Amino acid sequence: MQTMPNFLMKRAFLTPERIAVYFRDQAITFEELYILSVTTAGQLQKLGVKKDQFIAVLLKNHLDTVVILFALQLLGVKTVILNNRLTPAELAWQLKDSKVSALILDDVFSHLEQMLSQELSSLHTFTKTNLFSQESISTELQEEISLDEICTIMYTSGTTGNPKGVMQTYGNHWWSATGSALNLGVTDQDCWLCTVPLFHISGFSILMRSVIYGMPLVLHEKFDQERTIQDIKEKKVTIMSVVGTMLTRIVESLKGGQLPQQFRCMLLGGGPAPLPLLKACVEKQIPVFQTYGMTETSSQIVTLSPEYSLSKLGSAGKPLFPSEIRIERTEGSKAQPGEAGEIIVKGPNVTRGYLYRPDATEDKIRNGWLYTGDIGYLDEDGFLYVLDRRSDLIISGGENIYPAEIEAVLLAHPEIQEAGVTGLNDPRWGQVPVAFIVTKNGEELSSDELKQFCREQLAKYKVPKDFYFTDQLPRNAAKKLLRRTLKEWLDEGRFK
Amino acid sequence: MQTMPNFLMKRAFLTPERIAVYFRDQAITFEELYILSVTTAGQLQKLGVKKDQFIAVLLKNHLDTVVILFALQLLGVKTVILNNRLTPAELAWQLKDSKVSALILDDVFSHLEQMLSQELSSLHTFTKTNLFSQESISTELQEEISLDEICTIMYTSGTTGNPKGVMQTYGNHWWSATGSALNLGVTDQDCWLCTVPLFHISGFSILMRSVIYGMPLVLHEKFDQERTIQDIKEKKVTIMSVVGTMLTRIVESLKGGQLPQQFRCMLLGGGPAPLPLLKACVEKQIPVFQTYGMTETSSQIVTLSPEYSLSKLGSAGKPLFPSEIRIERTEGSKAQPGEAGEIIVKGPNVTRGYLYRPDATEDKIRNGWLYTGDIGYLDEDGFLYVLDRRSDLIISGGENIYPAEIEAVLLAHPEIQEAGVTGLNDPRWGQVPVAFIVTKNGEELSSDELKQFCREQLAKYKVPKDFYFTDQLPRNAAKKLLRRTLKEWLDEGRFK
Repeated sequence: MQTMPNFLMKRAFLTPERIAVYFRDQAITFEELYILSVTTAGQLQKLGVKKDQFIAVLLKNHLDTVVILFALQLLGVKTVILNNRLTPAELAWQLKDSKVSALILDDVFSHLEQMLSQELSSLHTFTKTNLFSQESISTELQEEISLDEICTIMYTSGTTGNPKGVMQTYGNHWWSATGSALNLGVTDQDCWLCTVPLFHISGFSILMRSVIYGMPLVLHEKFDQERTIQDIKEKKVTIMSVVGTMLTRIVESLKGGQLPQQFRCMLLGGGPAPLPLLKACVEKQIPVFQTYGMTETSSQIVTLSPEYSLSKLGSAGKPLFPSEIRIERTEGSKAQPGEAGEIIVKGPNVTRGYLYRPDATEDKIRNGWLYTGDIGYLDEDGFLYVLDRRSDLIISGGENIYPAEIEAVLLAHPEIQEAGVTGLNDPRWGQVPVAFIVTKNGEELSSDELKQFCREQLAKYKVPKDFYFTDQLPRNAAKKLLRRTLKEWLDEGRFK
Repeated sequence: MQTMPNFLMKRAFLTPERIAVYFRDQAITFEELYILSVTTAGQLQKLGVKKDQFIAVLLKNHLDTVVILFALQLLGVKTVILNNRLTPAELAWQLKDSKVSALILDDVFSHLEQMLSQELSSLHTFTKTNLFSQESISTELQEEISLDEICTIMYTSGTTGNPKGVMQTYGNHWWSATGSALNLGVTDQDCWLCTVPLFHISGFSILMRSVIYGMPLVLHEKFDQERTIQDIKEKKVTIMSVVGTMLTRIVESLKGGQLPQQFRCMLLGGGPAPLPLLKACVEKQIPVFQTYGMTETSSQIVTLSPEYSLSKLGSAGKPLFPSEIRIERTEGSKAQPGEAGEIIVKGPNVTRGYLYRPDATEDKIRNGWLYTGDIGYLDEDGFLYVLDRRSDLIISGGENIYPAEIEAVLLAHPEIQEAGVTGLNDPRWGQVPVAFIVTKNGEELSSDELKQFCREQLAKYKVPKDFYFTDQLPRNAAKKLLRRTLKEWLDEGRFK
């Protein structure tokens, strides 16, 4: 069992005076961040939070969130990080599933407190203001952590069934950060801009890299292309994590201009990138590095390295040093170069499984390999090209949307017989979900009414933008819904 | 049990075209190095070398040595790396102790073959020429390694008793390399000059960093200040590992000149550095980073970071991110800031012990902490100042010399009653060993005769430069030899 010093504690000891976080007009050093986190650890302890508990957070991108997340680590708590965009029903489900002892939430979400407390009678909830107004009592800090310990839990939905809590250990985060450093390099001039949510692994992993590298993080509440360009210049940002839609907007906003010289890496994740966008970036000399990763791999697992950013345009690259990938045509049978198949991955950054779900874990992780469900191929040189993020997955503005989850909601509607959901290409969001419906009586339903129905149970971005009515859905011999056929129907323009 | 791809195999896959090694007028890429190593793995297999065996090497700094060392890793062999400067008796001892199946040796050492084979009847020996003339048969390469597996064994002597084989796992080397990268940074412009022996951890660790970082290594057969300065310029070297005597000669050779801009780190290990040398380097703008490490920590464990190279001049710095240090006044009792005591260390780069020596391992590693025997203190800010590399250790030109080993040889002399060895300051080597002798009949012996006597059993650098005769040696109440008092005698000029 490999132990290490608590990451923030060690970093504050090593380079106390370096800037840790830029947020709005504030800049705080690692020492200051550590002191704030220790204070908050004492406040959490005052509220009864203890080592080894599961504690959930529902927090927006903010300096306070950084402090709370590190305070929880200092206490040895396992943090369940909730997506801010979920509905109360979805939140309640995840809170119950993860058996959390308490929920810390931003004041803007305080209207949820009562409802969630009703649903989960044993749940303690406290707002940020409530937390920060507590007396900070002296606490026993976890000076050492084990790399096998759970640090965070983030929920993902699968192609079937309920969302599952992905267990991310300290080791997963550590190996992810060092694997990335060996690929992208790391210098004391680096500065990483985070405009993606901290509740996603894309954002949270930047936070971990910040303490592991001793590198400032520029934190934005949300993505704004103008502020992005401004801060890249003013804060001397060298690296930024983006998804396709964000990059498109940055390219548009740059117009004739360029990003400054020190900016060395636009890390592009969140699904296959359109080639025209990549070419536009080459023209504007934006150094794009495509990457492939997921919650289960604690962010990047495959990233294009500097020397291949042009010659292998469109590829996600090769697996980071500590990790491995393979393409399987069918289980156990390796695909040939150029041949598409399921992407399977292995490495110390890969989760050891899903919280309280030994069956789902066994199903997804076999012989040490995680079966991603994503489709891709390796070229002759071993570079990965991702064709499809899970045949069914819809990626909308960087958020993963699982059709099965939306279908389950629609099927609960009294008038609906069958439902199939797929992604429609969208210039702004990449994709948006649309639904195909077979009604019980064969008559069409009101789209507005259906949207309203979905909104009660699904985060807004998951609500289908259109509903198409049909007599029957495409299914295979085993009656499994063929969502790819739905996509073909859309491409053929059958429904408009 | 954490597995990872074989380091060289992975590196050759990731960045095949990057330069791996510059040696004399050759430059070979990682792909070429890999192909050569695979060929040699097949040649080793032809000679009967198999996975999990212990195989010893007695090799000089050379491109071939790099190839052989990686070939052994590809076969899953545990490599016992022998110091080239040992006597046949010392070599035979280590070969026996480590129970090796075979010894690969440079042709210049072929005169040892017969003698070693006599001493160790079951030992197979083959020279490099012999190895490279074999047919390369097809081999099953170890594509995956476990971080817990032994990669290398290097012998160190202790303050008492025989040399012990330090087990260095793949994990030890990995964590050492990544810990260093997080401190010094790593970029695709880096290039590390190795003029120290590959049979020392200082040299071998550069080899491991080379494959882990994807960074060229400039390999010299031996240290030469003029070639060093020339290659730093021509090969665009950015980092170099040195000991004090080497750095002194570089400073002298530079005269009015300076090292080029891209040269960013002179990593200075091998014992406390004299302050005048450090100041001379500041004047010449040589970016010196003092470091503290040993065979047991797979090289660096404490290194000064960039921003403190001036303000903490003379300090070895703080422990690398994954590692920890503590100063103990007495066992279990932490020293106060500024108070000297024994340096104890912990971390994933620290050996799990000595080969076949559970007792020695238990004695040195207690509760996960390695007791180094070295003396130092931490200042108020937690920076380490090393006062003495083991109170008894003599460091001569970067080689560790243990007085006890020399004393044991002297005590075997028929005329010698007592012997005590300590280090005398030397402008060229830092220190040289000198011996204090009590003879049986009270009469002095011939220095030349004693040197000859030592040379038969000890590497040349261990042979005392002077012999002083006295009636009695300083001992404490328990009759333990007080080597510090011998040093005081020298400082007082009692013996000249």
